[in-house]
Amino acid sequence: MSILTEADITRALAHVMDPELGRSLVELNMVRDLAVNDGAVTFTLALTVPECPLRDQLVEDARRAIEALPGVKNVAVTLGAMSEDERQAVLGGGRPTPLATNHNEVGSVIAVMSGKGGVGKSLVTGLLAAALARTGNRVGVLDADVTGPSIPKLFGIQGPLLGSPLGIEPARSRSGIKLMSVNFLLEDEGQAVIWRGPLISSAIQQFWSDVHWGRLDVLLVDLPPGMSDAALTVMQNLPINGILMVTTPQALTTMVVRKAVKMAQAVNVPILGVIENMAGFLAPDTGVRYEIFGPSHAAEVVTMASAPLLARLPIDPQVAALCDAGEIEDVVRPELAAALAAVQPAGHRPAGRS
Amino acid sequence: MSILTEADITRALAHVMDPELGRSLVELNMVRDLAVNDGAVTFTLALTVPECPLRDQLVEDARRAIEALPGVKNVAVTLGAMSEDERQAVLGGGRPTPLATNHNEVGSVIAVMSGKGGVGKSLVTGLLAAALARTGNRVGVLDADVTGPSIPKLFGIQGPLLGSPLGIEPARSRSGIKLMSVNFLLEDEGQAVIWRGPLISSAIQQFWSDVHWGRLDVLLVDLPPGMSDAALTVMQNLPINGILMVTTPQALTTMVVRKAVKMAQAVNVPILGVIENMAGFLAPDTGVRYEIFGPSHAAEVVTMASAPLLARLPIDPQVAALCDAGEIEDVVRPELAAALAAVQPAGHRPAGRS
Repeated sequence: MSILTEADITRALAHVMDPELGRSLVELNMVRDLAVNDGAVTFTLALTVPECPLRDQLVEDARRAIEALPGVKNVAVTLGAMSEDERQAVLGGGRPTPLATNHNEVGSVIAVMSGKGGVGKSLVTGLLAAALARTGNRVGVLDADVTGPSIPKLFGIQGPLLGSPLGIEPARSRSGIKLMSVNFLLEDEGQAVIWRGPLISSAIQQFWSDVHWGRLDVLLVDLPPGMSDAALTVMQNLPINGILMVTTPQALTTMVVRKAVKMAQAVNVPILGVIENMAGFLAPDTGVRYEIFGPSHAAEVVTMASAPLLARLPIDPQVAALCDAGEIEDVVRPELAAALAAVQPAGHRPAGRS
Repeated sequence: MSILTEADITRALAHVMDPELGRSLVELNMVRDLAVNDGAVTFTLALTVPECPLRDQLVEDARRAIEALPGVKNVAVTLGAMSEDERQAVLGGGRPTPLATNHNEVGSVIAVMSGKGGVGKSLVTGLLAAALARTGNRVGVLDADVTGPSIPKLFGIQGPLLGSPLGIEPARSRSGIKLMSVNFLLEDEGQAVIWRGPLISSAIQQFWSDVHWGRLDVLLVDLPPGMSDAALTVMQNLPINGILMVTTPQALTTMVVRKAVKMAQAVNVPILGVIENMAGFLAPDTGVRYEIFGPSHAAEVVTMASAPLLARLPIDPQVAALCDAGEIEDVVRPELAAALAAVQPAGHRPAGRS
């Protein structure tokens, strides 16, 4: 058995979160004077305020994380408090710039949004990422759906990810698209991530700032449904250049998408265009088109968003099958040409068909 | 102009939220020794901890809210701190019981959940509520999807709601189902509700405790997608008797629903059964059935949840049309008989078909 080191303890404590601040004790610089001596671990836990109501819980969580390590004989935690400056730095967001950010250079950041769930945001994100990669772009996908991530399954990729001195290395799809999703951090893709808002926000911020994206022409951000912490964090903390708004023909969807349009307008992020998914079903045997979710309401969204209708994607069972098989990169949808052009960085001419 | 009173100030401060606790200064009992003397307002703001990092923000927000009132000449805020007991009461959820709760008597509370968005949770909730009402039950629907509510549109109901001395009076559908949704509180249904987690949680708790539901046989709770604040609050703060888990044939959905099953198991709420929606499309002209979202994966969910498959609902454009027209109560789905039986209170025999 290898000897227990301070680094082992730090690694363990990097998984212990302050539930109010949504960041780890290590990241918050709460762990001081750490020493390990023949299995006896001592350190000071510097609280933001001495009367911190979470005090006992933090100590208990830290103790448990350390005691789970092999070779630990006992753990002694001294309570301390941060100086006023230190507290300001922690609470005021004066977080030191992570290393990865210094090495990332992202041309444009496009959010794929809807407000409504199950309309095909991840499908659109995946199809566009694949099309962008086919036309010679360096592409990344940040899966901001922390509790219901779809991106890994669409690309048939599982974790774990590798760390590097520059940060977390994103996964790579078959065609070289860089992917980051919470599912890469789970042992089993069916494992539940049950986090309140601050942790969701913190994860998304780290997917942006602590991941070594390197040089990208386009980063697509796949938003979850809803207009709460995840959407707010993406809009306010990531340098979003524009939004693609995904809708379906149902009036019910349109009502929720209208809310998302209002949100985008409220935070002043331009909507590049609207994509209508599930726009009817073309029976493969007879060629008959069925409006199974009713007639289109895309025009309402287009008017409200003052943005063009970029695509109407019908339901295609073959696409669903390829997505379920993790082969979204094999799907080519000519209907997405205008959407592709809208997110294509200037100067990049498509080398082939989308 | 009427004379400025303490009640005016309290009303104004009831809109000033503690952003960490997600409740107002008045609800948190932070406002003490309030006095108004010829336009001069004085009070003590009792902080949870004297060093509360949000101190300055709270004072500033309170001051602004008061200064917006006509007749206010100046505002003096003294800082104070709560006693240990008071702090425990506030942080430990020892909130005084609202009046409505004393007059509510709800037989069983059933959550309709999925984890995944757009699978038909609201459809299933609405269809079951209508079927329960048809068979003589007193039914309520609590729409816990605060940023993307669907219930009002399905039932064709808009706000505003009326208040009563007992609390907020829920809306009533044509067949007498009591409905509560954030959309009833908005001037325009397309208005965006952009709230972080604590406010979402607080709204859902109020939909339960401050609404005068009266006597109900069944209250159905329509959950939003995701497994964050809304789902946690419903599971932990409402007396949920059981969960109906909604899925669709896609493997992608199944993966996310597996997470929701894990969450239900983690918080120890029984899963009553599984409902598969969008289970193929039956062409109305030829009668051919198309598996447009691929073959069923419901068996996986059933095994994992150790709960029966209660229904498989195919896609029906007529149902979509009735839902978009706000006429979900006119939809009768015999496929839901087993689901209806599963949520039907004991002693109630269906008077007719579901």
